[in-house]
Order: sequence, then structure tokens, then C-alpha cells
Amino acid sequence: MIMDKHNIRLDLMYDGTAYHGFQRQKNAYTVQESIENAIFEITGERAALTGCGRTDAGVHARGYVANFFTSSRIKCEKLPIALNSKLAADVRIKGAREVPADFHARFSARSKTYTYTIINEAVCDVFMRRYSWFYPIALDFDEMRKAAEHIMGERDFAAFMAAGSPVSSTVRTVRDLTLKKDGGCITMEITADGFLYNMVRIIMGTLVYAGNGKIKSGDIPEILEKRERKNAGITAPPEGLCMKCVEY
Amino acid sequence: MIMDKHNIRLDLMYDGTAYHGFQRQKNAYTVQESIENAIFEITGERAALTGCGRTDAGVHARGYVANFFTSSRIKCEKLPIALNSKLAADVRIKGAREVPADFHARFSARSKTYTYTIINEAVCDVFMRRYSWFYPIALDFDEMRKAAEHIMGERDFAAFMAAGSPVSSTVRTVRDLTLKKDGGCITMEITADGFLYNMVRIIMGTLVYAGNGKIKSGDIPEILEKRERKNAGITAPPEGLCMKCVEY
Repeated sequence: MIMDKHNIRLDLMYDGTAYHGFQRQKNAYTVQESIENAIFEITGERAALTGCGRTDAGVHARGYVANFFTSSRIKCEKLPIALNSKLAADVRIKGAREVPADFHARFSARSKTYTYTIINEAVCDVFMRRYSWFYPIALDFDEMRKAAEHIMGERDFAAFMAAGSPVSSTVRTVRDLTLKKDGGCITMEITADGFLYNMVRIIMGTLVYAGNGKIKSGDIPEILEKRERKNAGITAPPEGLCMKCVEY
Repeated sequence: MIMDKHNIRLDLMYDGTAYHGFQRQKNAYTVQESIENAIFEITGERAALTGCGRTDAGVHARGYVANFFTSSRIKCEKLPIALNSKLAADVRIKGAREVPADFHARFSARSKTYTYTIINEAVCDVFMRRYSWFYPIALDFDEMRKAAEHIMGERDFAAFMAAGSPVSSTVRTVRDLTLKKDGGCITMEITADGFLYNMVRIIMGTLVYAGNGKIKSGDIPEILEKRERKNAGITAPPEGLCMKCVEY
């Protein structure tokens, strides 16, 4: 049956403030549900959208990817405008194209890139309040950078995973991690072949611990080695996190 | 009486999305009212806040200035944190300091600078949707720049004022006007000794008319000369406008 259908890839962005994450849930409004509803309004079909990953409530996306199968003959180039006309302004479809039947937004991904933004000033920029972690206590940026160096590469990130997550392996490869500071705005950009649950937010929280002196940058190797969540820093709040892009 | 009081200058920013502008109104919640309420909570005094200018509903400010007189002995350096603890997160006091009794946020201003942002892409950036004019039709940026050159200098801006505004003179001096394009984001920054009602938004709407071909850049001198609102472009929507700073 599925071979008669077209596999459509959607590239999209969303402001996650008003949503309980991407993935469909009972009793909570999600980005997935809002897009599936829009697809139904346009095509008359109840499609199941496959997302490139779960995102938590309040997390944002600039380059999210999803796919769904449809028998509809609506042209891909018309889909973004059609879907956007049904969606709220905080979710926008940037592009749609037909892809091979075996394309899977999650399993076909080779790597993902996230950004995390901290406003490290006495007063939070009102325009960034939904898109950053407001952290008014001074951070030692050099220590954060030194700590970040220990995160790079293939590692066992068990200490950087929300406790109790079911997963077969906790080894992941962080291919790139850059920290930038522009005035009081600190941004982390991190690329990995995959991320454990809450991994980016726990890495960010741990780098902040290095910046505020609760740990030393040189403690990171031991934190990794001991594989215990309690040794790492706090889970940084969701609003600073944004999925930047997915590489296939 | 007023000489016994301290004149306090507040530097602040606000996301204007949820407010009916700065200035106090009957039956509508404004930034002024929210700050006056916070001052009352902190000092117990019903202060009258003087703003550097009216802003329309939905307009934002990054560098707004206001002043008020108080008998309170609370130290200025403590005021921002104290007031911010009472204000909603979309209004932030950045600084407070005592100024001479004759400082008046509006009348002492020598010039003001505004920015106006347009997203000129097929799909609106979700993170800019409250802070820009989403304009999906292609604009000729060179024509907009040429049109902007005619706006510079001391001119009679009667054609660029909302009809029916009571004002003694419609002559203003635009000291600086720069247009920048970064991808699909067009930003205007404009500095003048003062602005007529809706002047920035009508200038922006007129530059957009030059960009979409409804007028030619060379038409601007005649539009100015004829002094009639109907010859200029539309009033650009409020959400793209932001008061950047006030010079004293």
C-alpha cells in the first residue's frame, strides 16, 4: 500500500513557547498535532507525521525535518503556502518535497545540530526572554570553553542523560561544539550523531557550573567516566534550546 | 514642593506586543501604567511618569527613557531590580539615576532614533513575527535606498504625518537614515530631532512603495512638496517599529 503513496519531506521552524514539544501527546497540544491537523484540512487525509526527534515543551526549532505519506496529488511547491494558511504563526513550513519511500526523518538522520542561548546580563533582553536562559550571575567564559573541550569526540554520555531514560547505548559522538560570547549573550552550537534525552541541556548546565565555579573545567573527564547523572550540572531550561538543523 | 523631590531618570526596554502603547489610557493597559503601578508598590507613592514620547499599540522599545519625581529615599542603584521584580517580563528597567530637576524625558530630548524591520521572504521567521513587518512580495532594495536619500535633511514632512494630527510645525530634520539588507531582512534606522505622528511608519510604507513599484524613488521630492498624506505610502504596521534610543 505504502508504495502507492508519496513520501513528503517537510522543512519547518517553530517557536515552541506555546507547545508541549513536537511529539503528539494525550491532553497536550503539540507541534505534530497542529501540522497533522493542517494536513487533514488540505488533503482530507489523516497522515501520521514522523519527526526527526522529540523536543521538550518550550524548545524551539529553526530547521526541523518531518515526513509523511500521502495519496494526495497536491503539488509539493504549493504545500508550504497551503499548510501555513492553516497553521498558527508560530509554526511555519519552509519547504516540501517528495523524497524516496525509505526516507525517514528520524532514522535517516546522520547528525543534528542544536544551539543553546544564555543571556548573562543583569537585566534580560525582553526580545530574548522566550528564546534564552536568563542567567544574571557572572560566568567565567574561559572556564566554560575549557570545559567544552572535554565534551568533544566519541564519549559515553551516560552522566549527561536524564536519569531513567531507556536506551541501548549511551555512547555518542559530538562532532562539533563551539561556544561564542557576544556582549552578554553566550551561545553554544553542538553537532552530534545523536543525542541522549536532555543531553544538550545537561551539557549546557554543566558548562554553566564550570562558569560559576561549582565545578572545574578539568572535572569533566571524571564526570564522564563515573557515568552518574548527579555529578553533572543542572538541566538548563528548555527555552534556550533550539534545533538548528538535521543533516542526512 | 517639587524641589524637595528627586527627579529619577529610568532607562528601559519593552516588548510592546501586549500593550496599548506607552502612554496611559482609559480602558487599555499601557507600559506607563504598568511602571507607575510598580513604582507605587516599591515607594508607596503615586508618581506620574513622563515618557520620551508616545508609542502606538504594538510598537517596541529598546532604549526608552522616562522620568518621575519622588520623595522616596530608595537608592537608584536598587530601583531596577526592585521595579523589575514587580513588572511583567516584557518590560525591563535597565537603569535608574537621579537627574537635575529640569530634566524632562520628552522636552529635553535632542533627537530620537528608531529602527524598523521588514522580513521580505516567502515565509516569515517565527522568531521575528512579533518584531517585524512580514512582506512576502519581492522588493527592489536599490529603489528603496534611492528613495530614502530624498528623506534626509530638514524637510516639511506634512505628507508623512497621520491626517488630522494637531501640530504647530510639520518641519523636522532627519539627521540619519540607513537602510540595510541582510538576507531577507531589511532594516531601516532613522534619527531625527523629532517625529510627527506615524512619521516613521509612513516613511517605511513609502519606501516599500518605491520597492514594489507603486511609486518611483524620484517621486519623493514631489510627495514632500505637495504636503498631502494621500500621496505617500501606507502606514507600515506597528510591530516592525522599535524605539532604539534617545539622545539628550
